[in-house]
Amino acid sequence: MAGNRRYVLAIDLGGTKIYSAVIDRKGKIVGLARKRTKGELGFEAVVTRLLDCAHEALQDAKVSLTDIKAVGIGSPGPLDLKNGVIIETPNLGWQNAPLKARVEEGLKKSVSIDNDGNLGILGEYAYGAGEGAQHMVGLFIGTGIGGGVIVNGKVLHGFNENAAELGHMILDPDGPVCGCGRKGCLEAFASRLAIEREIRSAVHQGTQTLLFEGDADLNARIRSKKLAAAFSAGDKVVQAAVIKSATYVGYGVANLLNIFNPEVVVIGGGVIEALGENYIKIVQETAARNVFPIAIRNVRITAAKLKDDSTLLGAAVLAWNSLSKKRSISLVVK
Amino acid sequence: MAGNRRYVLAIDLGGTKIYSAVIDRKGKIVGLARKRTKGELGFEAVVTRLLDCAHEALQDAKVSLTDIKAVGIGSPGPLDLKNGVIIETPNLGWQNAPLKARVEEGLKKSVSIDNDGNLGILGEYAYGAGEGAQHMVGLFIGTGIGGGVIVNGKVLHGFNENAAELGHMILDPDGPVCGCGRKGCLEAFASRLAIEREIRSAVHQGTQTLLFEGDADLNARIRSKKLAAAFSAGDKVVQAAVIKSATYVGYGVANLLNIFNPEVVVIGGGVIEALGENYIKIVQETAARNVFPIAIRNVRITAAKLKDDSTLLGAAVLAWNSLSKKRSISLVVK
Repeated sequence: MAGNRRYVLAIDLGGTKIYSAVIDRKGKIVGLARKRTKGELGFEAVVTRLLDCAHEALQDAKVSLTDIKAVGIGSPGPLDLKNGVIIETPNLGWQNAPLKARVEEGLKKSVSIDNDGNLGILGEYAYGAGEGAQHMVGLFIGTGIGGGVIVNGKVLHGFNENAAELGHMILDPDGPVCGCGRKGCLEAFASRLAIEREIRSAVHQGTQTLLFEGDADLNARIRSKKLAAAFSAGDKVVQAAVIKSATYVGYGVANLLNIFNPEVVVIGGGVIEALGENYIKIVQETAARNVFPIAIRNVRITAAKLKDDSTLLGAAVLAWNSLSKKRSISLVVK
Repeated sequence: MAGNRRYVLAIDLGGTKIYSAVIDRKGKIVGLARKRTKGELGFEAVVTRLLDCAHEALQDAKVSLTDIKAVGIGSPGPLDLKNGVIIETPNLGWQNAPLKARVEEGLKKSVSIDNDGNLGILGEYAYGAGEGAQHMVGLFIGTGIGGGVIVNGKVLHGFNENAAELGHMILDPDGPVCGCGRKGCLEAFASRLAIEREIRSAVHQGTQTLLFEGDADLNARIRSKKLAAAFSAGDKVVQAAVIKSATYVGYGVANLLNIFNPEVVVIGGGVIEALGENYIKIVQETAARNVFPIAIRNVRITAAKLKDDSTLLGAAVLAWNSLSKKRSISLVVK
């Protein structure tokens, strides 16, 4: 029955890749596509790639654009949510990029945007590790570290709508320089780039690692899967770097437990996808040692249940919610 | 007209002093009393002192107990809010102390309790520095450091109702040992006790300070007012210790801005009451250097407007709100 063909289009605009998915009311992904972002081509070229990616997801789902009721996009920030503008994004090098307007022009659909970390936790809240929790915190460990928070069943946005920059919590004012220009942020201790830096530093000091054998290019990016393989193979350099990352994430989680006292802490992102429970266990143990017992009592600290799809599913919730505020309550509160 | 004689009783149960006040609907304190807590006498003895203090406030206000509609108490925590029990309080040495039940027995009035930091920010939200802000963060710098957060116009309590332990945010995992037993908490860098420790450490190393001249007892408590006098007199040891405290509070505020993106940050407590703008200015400057520009744009970082009365007025709001949930909305949202 044609009337039942109601879907939203969810897009996860990342620094490296664009994911696009057609998603139904129950959070089922019925079609998926991905493309490299190629941010260096500039904002307008990336919008074209994003629109192509969206059409590929529609083809994959065998769904026509007429059956799409709304579009949700997860984007790096800071963002102007109301106007749908990317204020700036150091990773992609854009400023004041009118994302919502361009995608609305391209698809002739209503578009909502939010920060990728906010949508990551919203996806886990609605369809993943949340399972009815009304207070959640998410840390997404990849190239950088994104964050998202649910308070009383709602995404925490704050006064200028740019709350939950959890990766830039300072954990040592004299710590390593962060991509944001300041010192000692969680991200500077624990992101994939921070892990790479630790490993390179050890190699420069003459330590052997499986990752750079023979005449390997020391500047090459270390993918999370290669990290995980070397970790499992017992590579000491990699193990030390990963343990350091997970330990600092554990300090960050301890702080977030004392600050928010959430019911669920979700740890996601590429580093977690690759390293899994080895990593989560260190986070759990470090957090437990550094927090008030009551702030961790009956709290679940868990890997993202939706894996790479947390942000995509959060973008779907955002799109459905945009259709009706009343409807959003029945959708989101389980 | 007798019908207009509607008041609440607000009590601020602190580690050193108990304050009690009779407060009207508009947040006006019409009677006040205070007493030393003397926690070492044990919980039951302190309850008796608290009840005496409450009656003294009624006498001061010339208000009879019949005109008191409800009672609100700010207490150190962690607390079991629903049952009105102090789970434990290291400062006072109690465990599972049934505060609500005992005060209800003593006054024959309905009693609500909450954490002193939570009520501090609630007081500032309703009657102080809030001025219509819906997102606020408070840090109260005294013997320890308490915290409170308002998100979307409501006090943040979290899953186990023990959120906003902002003083125990770790700012350096290798930092000084904190009263909570962990290392490098904001409180261990910045509380009045941390300032005292810095000063004593300098004196042990032979540096001169106005605070310990002649055969002064090095272990004597340094009151905030004496700190402020020595600071203003140009005492180098005191200035360095105070600047260190304010700088770490600035790091903490930077983190809280990135995490909550509030509209107003309130800095209160005895240390701030004594040192005032000298201290606030360092906090503002340090925070501004260590935060994303958008998370501090148009944000006010300010001393508590209600001074020592933030928690008392928050306790009054709690008491009024307990009378009627509907009424609370018209009272609190301005």
